[in-house]
Amino acid sequence: MYNYGIAIHGGAGTISKSLMSEEKEIAYKSALQEARDIGYEMLEKGGSAIEAVTLAVSSLEDCPLFNAGKGAVFNAEGEHELDASIMNGKNLEAGAVAAVQGVRNPIQLAQLVLNHSDHILLMGEGALKFASPFKIAMEDADYFHNEHRFNQWQKMKGSDDFQLDHSDKPKQYLGTVGAVALDVHGDLAAATSTGGMTNKKFGRIGDSPIIGAGTYANNNTCAISCTGSGEFLMKGVTAYDISCMMEYAGMSLIDASNQSINKRLLDLGGDGGIVGIDRAGNIAMPFNCEGMYRASRNQQEACVLIYK
Amino acid sequence: MYNYGIAIHGGAGTISKSLMSEEKEIAYKSALQEARDIGYEMLEKGGSAIEAVTLAVSSLEDCPLFNAGKGAVFNAEGEHELDASIMNGKNLEAGAVAAVQGVRNPIQLAQLVLNHSDHILLMGEGALKFASPFKIAMEDADYFHNEHRFNQWQKMKGSDDFQLDHSDKPKQYLGTVGAVALDVHGDLAAATSTGGMTNKKFGRIGDSPIIGAGTYANNNTCAISCTGSGEFLMKGVTAYDISCMMEYAGMSLIDASNQSINKRLLDLGGDGGIVGIDRAGNIAMPFNCEGMYRASRNQQEACVLIYK
Repeated sequence: MYNYGIAIHGGAGTISKSLMSEEKEIAYKSALQEARDIGYEMLEKGGSAIEAVTLAVSSLEDCPLFNAGKGAVFNAEGEHELDASIMNGKNLEAGAVAAVQGVRNPIQLAQLVLNHSDHILLMGEGALKFASPFKIAMEDADYFHNEHRFNQWQKMKGSDDFQLDHSDKPKQYLGTVGAVALDVHGDLAAATSTGGMTNKKFGRIGDSPIIGAGTYANNNTCAISCTGSGEFLMKGVTAYDISCMMEYAGMSLIDASNQSINKRLLDLGGDGGIVGIDRAGNIAMPFNCEGMYRASRNQQEACVLIYK
Repeated sequence: MYNYGIAIHGGAGTISKSLMSEEKEIAYKSALQEARDIGYEMLEKGGSAIEAVTLAVSSLEDCPLFNAGKGAVFNAEGEHELDASIMNGKNLEAGAVAAVQGVRNPIQLAQLVLNHSDHILLMGEGALKFASPFKIAMEDADYFHNEHRFNQWQKMKGSDDFQLDHSDKPKQYLGTVGAVALDVHGDLAAATSTGGMTNKKFGRIGDSPIIGAGTYANNNTCAISCTGSGEFLMKGVTAYDISCMMEYAGMSLIDASNQSINKRLLDLGGDGGIVGIDRAGNIAMPFNCEGMYRASRNQQEACVLIYK
């Protein structure tokens, strides 16, 4: 039996300790713990890594604290456009959706694409047409309305600024949720979901629905889910970069992910972090900014963390 | 002065010699030669690799023989949705558009995204909104209408089949144009453009607008443009994979691209090929199917080829 385990994140950025109340910290941590344990329990009873990451990410999507699903930020039109991707390390099958509206759990739609389509990435209305024979939960605008997010948007509306979720600086862009897992069968999987950037325009697609950039899984190496400044993760092809350092340079997950986040992404000028797990169950969660909402659990240990 | 050069492709697939007339072969070859030489002349007078690949790809987009720009195939709604991406190996800056309609030269729109946006990938209507302050050439449906493409679509319309351009088998999907170049300053660039697959549905996005999958350029390694079965190139993160083999495993461009196309892509079940150039001006154009429309030129030699 493999050394199964899970790691999740709820985004990274300039998470100021001074602006964080005790209640808020408890709320974030208990949401992370819940999502992690939903995934872990699936692994414990022999479920697949794909099921575990889908459950964990769905739980984070249902929580208004994180920028994905229910908690998604407002775009320049005051709407919610959701992106998600999922990859199975066993066979490299992948599914992803970009700029879908009204979908309660975009990660579940990405999983439908993985399971039932010859394609990998479907966007907008087209993705919803694909989904129509399947019963997926749809929600109206009220469900996604959140006063805090609305106020974030009001401050930027009409300007050229855009903002990452867990950041007070405009033109920064973090705010994603994700999960990676290794199951008892030795299979890896990764999943990522996001509401994008506050006030985003022009049908911008970030790293989250891109296989290789925001998400990658391969049983030969690792499973990775990224969060941070999406455009830099796209230039760096960060998720696959970590896998390549392991495969081609023989590096460990810890060394490869550190190199990718604390050297290569920084050199590009990007902020962010990843959660990763390898086929031995080793977990890495490096980030190069103030904080990253994150949690992990395997048979030996468990943690829920925000700061370094 | 660097050993400047250019390589281009017009798609790969089951290009049957028995179905190719002499006139058709001459038409393809002269279009390839023209596009290649437009790019090469820019390099010769000291222009940048980015300029050279934009010119070469624009020329292929203007030719009805190739599935990009004017020659784009019909999607399931009888429309033309165009994808393109471009990357500068000097600074890793990139621009891309997905599912844009009515744009004469999608590669020039991708270059505008590279030059004038904080984002990398813009889609659909949003990309056109971004473009509106710039004077880009727009065309109506008549411009993109082509009897051959229309008949290809009529055969599949209403079915679940889709087809790659240079293939008679349904559910195959090739048909892309692309270019890579090294300029006298030692800078690399890559560009890719496509009309997607005949009868494509659901807002499918393939590898062509994805940095890392269809396009990648990095002065430290190589510039790559892919063509072939898009979903497999996405799973393989093929363009970046070649760069990683060079960077992390110390392989040559020739060996890395052969390994990626003739081993890894084949193992995944994918058809296709690439054009690539490294910082020394070495050119590679491997493909694992019957043919690939391709041409290259540097100071030592020049070629225009279709079959192995």
